[in-house]
Amino acid sequence: MRDNQKEQNMKHLLPTWLQHGQYKHALHENIVAGIVVGIVVIPQSLGYALLAGLPPVYGLYAAIIPVLVYAFIGASNTQAVGPVAITSIMTAQALVPFAQAQSSTFIALAAFMALLVGVILVFAAWLKLGWIMQFISRGVMAAFITGAALLIITGQIKYILGLSVQGDTLPHLLYGFWQQYSQINRYALAIGITAITVLWLNRRYSLLVLSKLGVPHYVANLTVKLVPIVVVVLASVAVYQLQLLSYQVKVVGDIPAGLPAFTLPHWPAWQQWQTLFSSALLIALIAFISSASVAKSVALQRQEPFDANKELLGLGLANISAAFFKGFPITGGFSRTAVNLEAGANSPLAGVFSAITMALVLLFASNWFYYLPLAVLGAGVIVAATNLIDLHTLKMAWHSDKTEAWAYVVTLLCVVLLGLQLGLLLGLFFSVGSLIWRSHQPHMAVVGQVEQTEHFRNVQRHHVTTWPNLLLLRIDENLFFGNSESIANRVWFEVNAQPSVKDVVLIFSAVNHIDLSSQWMLQTLEKQLQQRDIKVHFAEIKGFVMDTLINTPLITYWRGSIFSTTQEAADALKPPVKEPEYNL
Amino acid sequence: MRDNQKEQNMKHLLPTWLQHGQYKHALHENIVAGIVVGIVVIPQSLGYALLAGLPPVYGLYAAIIPVLVYAFIGASNTQAVGPVAITSIMTAQALVPFAQAQSSTFIALAAFMALLVGVILVFAAWLKLGWIMQFISRGVMAAFITGAALLIITGQIKYILGLSVQGDTLPHLLYGFWQQYSQINRYALAIGITAITVLWLNRRYSLLVLSKLGVPHYVANLTVKLVPIVVVVLASVAVYQLQLLSYQVKVVGDIPAGLPAFTLPHWPAWQQWQTLFSSALLIALIAFISSASVAKSVALQRQEPFDANKELLGLGLANISAAFFKGFPITGGFSRTAVNLEAGANSPLAGVFSAITMALVLLFASNWFYYLPLAVLGAGVIVAATNLIDLHTLKMAWHSDKTEAWAYVVTLLCVVLLGLQLGLLLGLFFSVGSLIWRSHQPHMAVVGQVEQTEHFRNVQRHHVTTWPNLLLLRIDENLFFGNSESIANRVWFEVNAQPSVKDVVLIFSAVNHIDLSSQWMLQTLEKQLQQRDIKVHFAEIKGFVMDTLINTPLITYWRGSIFSTTQEAADALKPPVKEPEYNL
Repeated sequence: MRDNQKEQNMKHLLPTWLQHGQYKHALHENIVAGIVVGIVVIPQSLGYALLAGLPPVYGLYAAIIPVLVYAFIGASNTQAVGPVAITSIMTAQALVPFAQAQSSTFIALAAFMALLVGVILVFAAWLKLGWIMQFISRGVMAAFITGAALLIITGQIKYILGLSVQGDTLPHLLYGFWQQYSQINRYALAIGITAITVLWLNRRYSLLVLSKLGVPHYVANLTVKLVPIVVVVLASVAVYQLQLLSYQVKVVGDIPAGLPAFTLPHWPAWQQWQTLFSSALLIALIAFISSASVAKSVALQRQEPFDANKELLGLGLANISAAFFKGFPITGGFSRTAVNLEAGANSPLAGVFSAITMALVLLFASNWFYYLPLAVLGAGVIVAATNLIDLHTLKMAWHSDKTEAWAYVVTLLCVVLLGLQLGLLLGLFFSVGSLIWRSHQPHMAVVGQVEQTEHFRNVQRHHVTTWPNLLLLRIDENLFFGNSESIANRVWFEVNAQPSVKDVVLIFSAVNHIDLSSQWMLQTLEKQLQQRDIKVHFAEIKGFVMDTLINTPLITYWRGSIFSTTQEAADALKPPVKEPEYNL
Repeated sequence: MRDNQKEQNMKHLLPTWLQHGQYKHALHENIVAGIVVGIVVIPQSLGYALLAGLPPVYGLYAAIIPVLVYAFIGASNTQAVGPVAITSIMTAQALVPFAQAQSSTFIALAAFMALLVGVILVFAAWLKLGWIMQFISRGVMAAFITGAALLIITGQIKYILGLSVQGDTLPHLLYGFWQQYSQINRYALAIGITAITVLWLNRRYSLLVLSKLGVPHYVANLTVKLVPIVVVVLASVAVYQLQLLSYQVKVVGDIPAGLPAFTLPHWPAWQQWQTLFSSALLIALIAFISSASVAKSVALQRQEPFDANKELLGLGLANISAAFFKGFPITGGFSRTAVNLEAGANSPLAGVFSAITMALVLLFASNWFYYLPLAVLGAGVIVAATNLIDLHTLKMAWHSDKTEAWAYVVTLLCVVLLGLQLGLLLGLFFSVGSLIWRSHQPHMAVVGQVEQTEHFRNVQRHHVTTWPNLLLLRIDENLFFGNSESIANRVWFEVNAQPSVKDVVLIFSAVNHIDLSSQWMLQTLEKQLQQRDIKVHFAEIKGFVMDTLINTPLITYWRGSIFSTTQEAADALKPPVKEPEYNL
């Protein structure tokens, strides 16, 4: 009896998909999918490690333990996590100021960065910040990813040309190529261009051709995914057979056999903390948004629920585990997930088997990659990155939302000219700035009374009664720091336009929130108008707004009146009706 | 005749205050005010140059040409510009990673930073970004300034202790003091503590005491302002007489006689650009907001108009001129302006005379500062910075707007623990984040028809008719990236709650804007619901919203209907009324 209960308790520690035995229905499919993903993502992972400034093997390390952790905690049944292009290049750009790429310091800092990103994500999960996936507008996100893709492609060209150009902006990279023009390695170039052509044609046309040949969709799909593996094998064989090493063609070289050992992350110097922390914040934001949006759209397709906070937690713990096993920041990848789904995965078990596959490769096949040319890894990354270029959103924005189109252009330019971090920050500011700009001239109307009724309407649109000593001003938006100055300016404008005014009534019928900055503005305004012998009053403050204001200095020390309706205000403040002169 | 016209044309090139001869009314007052400001701000300027990491004399340089430029172009009649505490410490923190403080590289980079800040401000003026002064909420700004003041005070303690601690965060500085504890210079300490005590007592009580003694307010005010000069003189004399130089008391030392020469700013290496540019953006933002808010409140007091864009231009050109005359970033200062006003300034002529005074000091009195101990300059900066500490706003926010109180706490902690730039950025994100968070759950209501009328009301509050196949959902806020996902989630929630639904009508009666992200969300939602055989329709899209949407993919490819009223939608979509079974 007690044992049974204990078993029950133990069971609750397991993730839902294990508790409910969901994996049993399709054990076979998930094992196959896991193995396919494990094999297919090998060249990708090697390439992304290079992109992140690390020796290629670290890409494999980052795709073992974190994948297992995510399988047990993540929000998605089918999302495949691991190193992806965007977070890899962000990691590289964040660390380049502090260490030489591929150096042991760099490797240690990359692991520390994963730790920081992970801790930030877990902290965000604890604060239930899942809603933050709505923080970035579509245009800014698309522009950021497009800009990152352009930087990735340009950066990877060095492997195709056999050069060692460094730089994190487009002009910087192009200038590097210009300078090293004479040192281009034509063997690397030949391999690189061939690989790009094959991979691109494969991605573009293979599925079409195979379908026309009557190959079943599932098989065709897998074939397309496995072509990169074939390219990797053939290129390695070519390098070995043609003895291209003697022509300075760079290859992956020795990969230490064995699993990544548990390693405590390097603790950086205090001076580096600030910069690393701000980079980690941005990487965490982008990692979460990209992962959550993939996971969410998959969940919707499969009619499964999606919990953004659980996703934060899973991703955070996966990154923390990466930090302790020689990894670097990882996230959910669109293409990894697509492979996983197409291979038939429908539970996190697939992730477990992809990690096992990867581990077996590291244990028994690590020397297979010795002759793999870096040009092929570069080619793979370039072809993958072309898929990230999103001009469609710009085109759409141009027709649908000009501000957003400008946000796209500004972000893209800033990213390619100033680097990823600054570009993203400026894009975010532009986007938020346009939001504030849009509300910085809030709709306000001077109102008057519609004859014979209790209705008050805009004086510009209706025939209404007004009184020379009384200004009735309706504010149609919430008051916040972004529009409080504008509201004060508008009040001054109306007061100056109507010099006989002695009483101003601000009508809050459409106001749901008055923030600190606006409360301050109202107090200052009241004081300033007082100096001109003008009194300010409120009318129609909503009940729940009044509840939050009741103990604030604004209401406590308010010298004007607070009327419940505009009618009441008008009755109290309009000039007394003169007695008719002809008394009967 | 022609000469006369020429003179007229020439006149238009002059600023308004010269054209209208406004200065003539009070020539005397403005000259006096200018000279007073010129003298009073000398120790301040020396101290702020030190704070910015420059030799003290650069504080005087920055208070000559830029002041003249601002006098001719700025938006304010009485604002006094020059080096101020906040921008000085921001400059120091921005440049410390690139050069040793006080080194020639550092000096050159400081001038370049002024150029960048100036160009950014002029560019902002050209784009008419004056409204950006509303970008930062009151709580975040107060917390940023408080945090900066704490860092300034802690940083200046090194001059009081005679140490050479570096660091741009509180823990870092405190650790520095801990380490160098044994090297404290007790002579510097004695001078510093005395100076702080005198300056603080003076600031706190002198005016009160003098008023009680019957000294006229104007004289009392000036006396208080001139006490720091007396402290400076006495301390210098003390150092000289007591031969404190032999006890390693640090002094200002040699100041080269003569005006700052025209110098082209140093062009930094490409790698430094990104970081310098992002720092310059933040300095420009803070410089503009502090300057504009001082200038605006003075303008309001004096019932003068205030043009934020003109302020941007004046401040920008002043900074650019600083860059070419050995300066560093400057802005309008609250205390400088207060001195100016109290001394009777009422036109920019006062600024001209303060610059002339400063120039005369540099030409003929530069050796007077040789024995001035740095401990006194530090004391001056510390006492000035205590005035920037603003806990009142936190207290107010705690009662009035809890979110803003949290924004204050987060910003303050980030500033003192992570440095000014990162602290400010995180504060801004927190502030904007809270804005998005507040609107991320937009108000939406399922509505039904009020019996016998054409009115549709919230089903939770009114007795209304609904139909099982029809979901009428009113959205009460503008659609933007920050709430589009939430809106989609709510629609799904309502659809799942009413499984018989076949038609969903989204009612846009309260919607003034639908941004790109939301258009995309609506299209995706429509596609997903279509897969469940549910149609989505729109109703009551406002005329001007429809105008902006008419050519967008959303409307062009929209498969549902677009009804002009909810009534129309209900009539078209509700199940046909069954014929009564008992036919007569």
